[in-house]
Amino acid sequence: MFFYLSALQACSSSVFSDRKVHITQGDHECRSVIISWVTPVEKYPNVVTYWEAGTKHLHKLQTHSEITTYRYYNYASGYIHHATIKDLTFDTKYFYEVASNEVTRQFSFTTPPKPGPDVPYTFGVIGDLGQTADSNQTLEHYMSNPIKGQAVLFASDLSYADDHPNHDNTKWDTFGRFIEKSVVYQPWIWSAGNHEIDLAPNLVRHQININRDPFKPYLHRYYVPYKASQSTSRLWYSIKRVLTYIIVISSYLAYGKYSPQYKWLEQELPKINRYETPWVIVILHAPWYNSNHYHYMEGESMRVQFEPWFVQYKVDIVFAGHVHSYERSERISNIKYNITNGLSLPVRDINAPVYITIGDGGNMEGIANNFIYPQPNYSAYRKASFGHVILDIKNRTHAYYCWQRNQDNEPFVADSAWFFNRFFSYGG
Amino acid sequence: MFFYLSALQACSSSVFSDRKVHITQGDHECRSVIISWVTPVEKYPNVVTYWEAGTKHLHKLQTHSEITTYRYYNYASGYIHHATIKDLTFDTKYFYEVASNEVTRQFSFTTPPKPGPDVPYTFGVIGDLGQTADSNQTLEHYMSNPIKGQAVLFASDLSYADDHPNHDNTKWDTFGRFIEKSVVYQPWIWSAGNHEIDLAPNLVRHQININRDPFKPYLHRYYVPYKASQSTSRLWYSIKRVLTYIIVISSYLAYGKYSPQYKWLEQELPKINRYETPWVIVILHAPWYNSNHYHYMEGESMRVQFEPWFVQYKVDIVFAGHVHSYERSERISNIKYNITNGLSLPVRDINAPVYITIGDGGNMEGIANNFIYPQPNYSAYRKASFGHVILDIKNRTHAYYCWQRNQDNEPFVADSAWFFNRFFSYGG
Repeated sequence: MFFYLSALQACSSSVFSDRKVHITQGDHECRSVIISWVTPVEKYPNVVTYWEAGTKHLHKLQTHSEITTYRYYNYASGYIHHATIKDLTFDTKYFYEVASNEVTRQFSFTTPPKPGPDVPYTFGVIGDLGQTADSNQTLEHYMSNPIKGQAVLFASDLSYADDHPNHDNTKWDTFGRFIEKSVVYQPWIWSAGNHEIDLAPNLVRHQININRDPFKPYLHRYYVPYKASQSTSRLWYSIKRVLTYIIVISSYLAYGKYSPQYKWLEQELPKINRYETPWVIVILHAPWYNSNHYHYMEGESMRVQFEPWFVQYKVDIVFAGHVHSYERSERISNIKYNITNGLSLPVRDINAPVYITIGDGGNMEGIANNFIYPQPNYSAYRKASFGHVILDIKNRTHAYYCWQRNQDNEPFVADSAWFFNRFFSYGG
Repeated sequence: MFFYLSALQACSSSVFSDRKVHITQGDHECRSVIISWVTPVEKYPNVVTYWEAGTKHLHKLQTHSEITTYRYYNYASGYIHHATIKDLTFDTKYFYEVASNEVTRQFSFTTPPKPGPDVPYTFGVIGDLGQTADSNQTLEHYMSNPIKGQAVLFASDLSYADDHPNHDNTKWDTFGRFIEKSVVYQPWIWSAGNHEIDLAPNLVRHQININRDPFKPYLHRYYVPYKASQSTSRLWYSIKRVLTYIIVISSYLAYGKYSPQYKWLEQELPKINRYETPWVIVILHAPWYNSNHYHYMEGESMRVQFEPWFVQYKVDIVFAGHVHSYERSERISNIKYNITNGLSLPVRDINAPVYITIGDGGNMEGIANNFIYPQPNYSAYRKASFGHVILDIKNRTHAYYCWQRNQDNEPFVADSAWFFNRFFSYGG
């Protein structure tokens, strides 16, 4: 069931297919794109060439990349390039070229419309993707969805390289190749899950332990614009995108009071101007409201720390991955507890976010088909199937939300709802 | 009230007093000592000379130090030396010399007795020490206590440098000098608190931001034998000392499931052989059971994550700092909660540790005199005063415990109890 995509693997020796290009938002204000790629043999050229589509006098621009490499046990990465293209014009198609000595590849992306609180925008949401046949189906369904996603919110767990002997890092390369068909054309907004930790202190080679730093492969391969939001770590950051404010936080770094992530989020939430970005979306990995035995209550300690803020600042939606099934919560909160008052049940709360578990991208460990019965009152809908989400935000008050289930090779809308903005509208 | 020790500060220009020597346990098995010191001007000599006291034919040995330095905003540290003396004999007095070009200083320490489950040993416990007049009183009281502590368990928050403009790192030097009178003669077991985080991303000098890494001064100055317990971070580790197994964990690094600290502690607790080390003591910073408004419930998210293990593995005592007062808990636990069952009250539990808050070393922010009323049932004794703890472990079943309160310049036993080992005896 979880065999690898042999077609993809067959390309692995081809220099052509070894670019592993991906793009993500490159700043806080959405005027910039980070283009990342790998040159397996030669370090140079380290440039991206780009130009606006349809301009009369073609004016090509270039920007240089920052180059990084890493070693992991018996694996040595290629040259990993990250180039930031700045000062892009909104609502414009750009072509870009990534070159090596042998071959030049050309792609394009379209910048989002000029931001405004009622400018519609559509996200795909995928989590725990992996690179199995299920992963491929999820990605194909997302790309062929009649509601076209313009960017992907990725709820962590990318390649599952760490599930292979010695965390086989060639799986990071094959994953990069696998997702290219989408991520060269539209930005994916990254977050890191437990499968990105890749800490293996016992993998010692040539007497040198080179795997003492957690998140090593991920941090070299997936750059994000963390400094633009005053973050001090690539594992938590925020961006504005059209009418949304997106916050990525890490279930696997410290979130205790006074920890760097805590202090950052404490300052971040009050900053959001809802008249500019009405929709506040949080991405993290380990879900806070999960009624599957699989990973049950693993998000609890982070929930205890941060949930009061999410209610106070009226976060609209929290996307998590981790559990390999789908679940949507009611709008509930559980923030009254003070150790001695016994108030520890989730209750309906109009200020609370909806919590979505979308860890059903494909992974490589199988589906999580072991729900707790009876279904707890905090759970609105749940199903053990692979799939993806489309979040089609219409304006400052309304968003159409649907979960597309992978069903007999056809996408199938199994769960859908209208979400009403927590700041501008109080509905269901 | 919180003036600085001017006598100590007056010495700051003297090369003699600038060694800032301190010692700590250097391995897991207690056969080794790490000696740390600072040479402010010259890098060399980088050696410690040491010898057994009272041997007929004086046989001096030498060991070299690892040298580190760091910069913090406008501060450049001296050369910080860390030398590990190995293969020490138990129950033996050693002299050691730390040299510089100008002056050689000689100190001594006595190694603990050969470990055994009924070999008595006495710890002092100090938290949130700082370097105020209150700090000095606490330290003097500890050193003059008729029950002589043989090592100090330090519940974090050392110098409070971060409470000064630009995290004035000379305060780390003055703190090193202040505690010398105890820590050159007996090991202090270190842990890091929120005042060690020292993260100041906005302190930029010469266009270079050099303060992006948390715990920078602490990690350069206070070495611990973390690798000996298979830890991958200096901020969590364990040691065996006579009849105790001491675990240091960090409230300010990640503890979520799958995080490195979580995975380490998960493997650590089942390893303990209680027939070898009957007493299991945990040191952390933010208390789990605290009934002071000051820092109330700040340890909650870590408690949610780790408390079930502490009960399962019958941890005897948990020492925390952080709250600038003293509190001792009943033996209680709160581990039945499953989101929907409402079971969220602390209940008496014979398998649970006693939780001690000993954040009353002296700090520089004042005493925490704002308790919650009525006193919750989990709190056995609490008092807003500075002081220190003596834990006098008699054998595998019994330990005499007392809190010495700083009272009118005299130490005063304000709280005392017999602790009965959780593995070998079930008493109060």
